[in-house]
Amino acid sequence: MNRVAIIGIGHTKFGRLIDKGLMDLLSEASIEAIEDSNTSNEDFDSVYVGAMSPGIYNQLSGVASALVDKISLIPAAADHIKNGPASGGSAIKVGFQAIASGMSDLVLVVGGEKMTHIKTPGYITSNVATLTHPEAERPHGVSLPSFGGMLTRAYLEKYNAELDWISDIAIKNHRNGALNPKAHFQRTIEDFMKSAVQKGKGSWDNIYDFLKDDRTNPIIADPLRLFHICPISDGAAALILCNAEKAKEYCDTPIQITGIGQATDTHIVFEREDITTLKALKISSNQAYKMANKIPEDIDVAELHDAFEILEAVQSEDIGFFKKGEGAKAAHEGLTEIGGIIPINPSGGLKARGHPLGATGVAQVVELVWQLRGDAGRRQVEGAETGITCNFGGFGNNIISILVERI
Amino acid sequence: MNRVAIIGIGHTKFGRLIDKGLMDLLSEASIEAIEDSNTSNEDFDSVYVGAMSPGIYNQLSGVASALVDKISLIPAAADHIKNGPASGGSAIKVGFQAIASGMSDLVLVVGGEKMTHIKTPGYITSNVATLTHPEAERPHGVSLPSFGGMLTRAYLEKYNAELDWISDIAIKNHRNGALNPKAHFQRTIEDFMKSAVQKGKGSWDNIYDFLKDDRTNPIIADPLRLFHICPISDGAAALILCNAEKAKEYCDTPIQITGIGQATDTHIVFEREDITTLKALKISSNQAYKMANKIPEDIDVAELHDAFEILEAVQSEDIGFFKKGEGAKAAHEGLTEIGGIIPINPSGGLKARGHPLGATGVAQVVELVWQLRGDAGRRQVEGAETGITCNFGGFGNNIISILVERI
Repeated sequence: MNRVAIIGIGHTKFGRLIDKGLMDLLSEASIEAIEDSNTSNEDFDSVYVGAMSPGIYNQLSGVASALVDKISLIPAAADHIKNGPASGGSAIKVGFQAIASGMSDLVLVVGGEKMTHIKTPGYITSNVATLTHPEAERPHGVSLPSFGGMLTRAYLEKYNAELDWISDIAIKNHRNGALNPKAHFQRTIEDFMKSAVQKGKGSWDNIYDFLKDDRTNPIIADPLRLFHICPISDGAAALILCNAEKAKEYCDTPIQITGIGQATDTHIVFEREDITTLKALKISSNQAYKMANKIPEDIDVAELHDAFEILEAVQSEDIGFFKKGEGAKAAHEGLTEIGGIIPINPSGGLKARGHPLGATGVAQVVELVWQLRGDAGRRQVEGAETGITCNFGGFGNNIISILVERI
Repeated sequence: MNRVAIIGIGHTKFGRLIDKGLMDLLSEASIEAIEDSNTSNEDFDSVYVGAMSPGIYNQLSGVASALVDKISLIPAAADHIKNGPASGGSAIKVGFQAIASGMSDLVLVVGGEKMTHIKTPGYITSNVATLTHPEAERPHGVSLPSFGGMLTRAYLEKYNAELDWISDIAIKNHRNGALNPKAHFQRTIEDFMKSAVQKGKGSWDNIYDFLKDDRTNPIIADPLRLFHICPISDGAAALILCNAEKAKEYCDTPIQITGIGQATDTHIVFEREDITTLKALKISSNQAYKMANKIPEDIDVAELHDAFEILEAVQSEDIGFFKKGEGAKAAHEGLTEIGGIIPINPSGGLKARGHPLGATGVAQVVELVWQLRGDAGRRQVEGAETGITCNFGGFGNNIISILVERI
């Protein structure tokens, strides 16, 4: 199997980007990655686009074919890879296999989504709810936030954890996002609190009280409130992959993808033995560790899929950093901060970097490349040499883990 | 690169299948292929689903995750591959790379679409039109049938061809489809004519007059009439892929995929040097021939993408069987019939087998496997050992060619 290296990265600003369409975002991230990699357009033989719902959100089919035309990569092969909010991770895996097999020499992987133009209330949540089971879940009104709420309740009860510890994850991720110029939010929750005080909306003794106030942090899916849930965002991120043997021809600091795992779990969440355990993550991360010959203790930095802040806690356990039931407490104790024993989501995570669905899996790897190159600025994890991601499709029914290392 | 073999096939009946949903069709074809391959469910590590628009047609996201649950392949990795009407071909290519790279040992590829339940007039054509360019084409009312009409006019004029020769392709494909129990239509055009006479709708001296009669064969996109255009169909088809070294453990008659090519062309059809030449097919088929070390003369049977009958003529040229401008005449002269020098679409093609978008690219390869196994019954191409496909995305902007051989 050919070894696969990342030799270029691109990442648009994430946020409410009113003047840009999906094709603009995919193009912008792609061109940035191509320029970063010192490659020529005619060298590319394949393009893989990860996006969840361009048909429904943007009335676009054939986005991959359209992209290769827009950025002048014709006649490169082009496909669109879909795996819900893990579409970006899946696109990386498919691109990895193209290089690993020898079928491709130079591959562009780009993930993106354009969502904030949709004004119909509930339209996006309803569409994301098409990821739930069409007979056993959806007709009963289940949405992904409702699963997030249920998981939070089950976790807090089972492990004697506190909701404030889940809030601590949001607080950390907003602090990290404030250090990431590409993040959707560059304001900490402390900033939001200060601003609310200035606007006369209330006054609070501490941030936890602010986060329990219905006026400033309404309940979305009890017990989860607004600040426990990622935003709806626009954005795109891109990677250039090539055979690792040739990586140094293009790039001084290639990063190698040494492990990739992907696994599925029951479509119906109720059928799982334990809602607080993500079996698909255990399997996929074990596949990645085994392929890379690493253990969780070897990881210097991780990007996890905190669409709901409870997920970061659970994932930090099932990916092997903490014992079962100790992830939220570890976050509360600061172990996952940038200076902690295992920094999680230095980018700000989905909570603060934002979550343009198809972009997220790719943006996670872009963040790890910045970290491993030593280019992460004020959010740099010192000496990071090894990183891992968790990109989450459905409500944990399809999870991808990607392990990267400095060459 | 690991060699890749097909060790199992599945194919639902194509047609207006009122009692089956998309997940039923994908499951039925998959289970048939798994049973055909003598594999066990726990041996599968990856599943790739090709489908164009489950979100828009069926309000389903995450179809790949849902499928692995429904047919008990959890925890196999699962992704949904999209490339318009070439989604099936792209899913095969991605599955091929999974095996070729060594990342997977046993892969299920399944393509399908469920469309006939949609009753809103024009909804499907409008959705398929999302494959056209959103600025340069769609706002002007361009649809894929309109491109089919324009290409037909340009071809007839440039090469002094006759519309009756294009009709000959439809006549042949309906005759072939009548021999294919899985085809959407098992009636020849002669059968339709006889039935129209019996119903007192008219009487005709020959089939060409019948095909020019507005009462029985209305114009859809001038000069193309109803019988020059494929139907809207439901259906699914599946393949089991494995490392060719292990193929004989599962199967007495493995078929090897020895060549795969994929290429893109300009998104805006107007920008092509010559609308009557499919540059993406020239490139993709050359890639496949080169990879397999074959030339067009080596091919015994082909499955081409006749969404509009003109396309079979043009593709038969650009894939290397006939000189430019001679494809329609060759069909008229019977060279592409089952007993001809290069049988094309013995399955009935998209015209008669039907065109459930994402299923088509997989169904083409299933037909070649039947032919190469000698299992094609009354439509058997005698002694077929080598076959090739053309699966067509957009209006020729993304084309995949797959070359298969008996091992």
